[in-house]
Amino acid sequence: MGDRWTVLILRELFMRSHRFEEIQAQTGGTPQMIAARLKALQADGLVERRLYNNRPPRHEYHLTEKGEAFYPVMLALRAWGEAWCKSPEEGRAISYTHRTCGKPAGLGPVCESCGLPLRREDMIAELNPAYQSEREARWEAFKDGR
Amino acid sequence: MGDRWTVLILRELFMRSHRFEEIQAQTGGTPQMIAARLKALQADGLVERRLYNNRPPRHEYHLTEKGEAFYPVMLALRAWGEAWCKSPEEGRAISYTHRTCGKPAGLGPVCESCGLPLRREDMIAELNPAYQSEREARWEAFKDGR
Repeated sequence: MGDRWTVLILRELFMRSHRFEEIQAQTGGTPQMIAARLKALQADGLVERRLYNNRPPRHEYHLTEKGEAFYPVMLALRAWGEAWCKSPEEGRAISYTHRTCGKPAGLGPVCESCGLPLRREDMIAELNPAYQSEREARWEAFKDGR
Repeated sequence: MGDRWTVLILRELFMRSHRFEEIQAQTGGTPQMIAARLKALQADGLVERRLYNNRPPRHEYHLTEKGEAFYPVMLALRAWGEAWCKSPEEGRAISYTHRTCGKPAGLGPVCESCGLPLRREDMIAELNPAYQSEREARWEAFKDGR
């Protein structure tokens, strides 16, 4: 178990942000903070670095099988955060549809519509518009600041 | 989300270690480390301090409702740790019986015997003898070192 930054980085990886700068922009960490946590996650076998460009060499970060298996922890953290750390007026940042039954998945660990345990590969994400704009604004601000 | 020490402290609280020194002994943290994390957990509303003795004043630490609600995260962390961070020969430190059906609960999030979602109040813990001795040894070592 790492610290807050590690959890934020894992969340980005589960949201399919794979590039260092995307992760940096969305978490708001310094390059040193992000690099140190990604290195620790690699050492612990949760993350692997993949070359996607040869010249210049560029890497992406992907969850390994051990990293993917951490999903239930992230799901439980999200459920707790939604229930205990937000005001009732705030909507959910992300809503999930359960591919298996085609209905809302809810907060888990089992689907609120069909009762089956939620697996990451069966979750279809929909970002609420405010959260989507927030993420885009973060990316723009990051690019401008470079 | 806190760091590794916060997770260890929460684990102790879920195991019903309520006194500062018990938590310190079992986590292996310094008094400063434990005090800072307990303070942060109080500020975040997960932990409350209860007076159990007036003269001299003595306190215990208990999970609040918000803290108790963190249980699914701890359960998911345990399941991940058992599956990915231990050698196959190592037995489980704690086995749970599901009070609701009277059979082994497994690692969750649903009972491996009856399929119902696991709630903390329905879990009956049994420490394996090696883990039990380890905990007793830690407490003895701690008392001797004071």
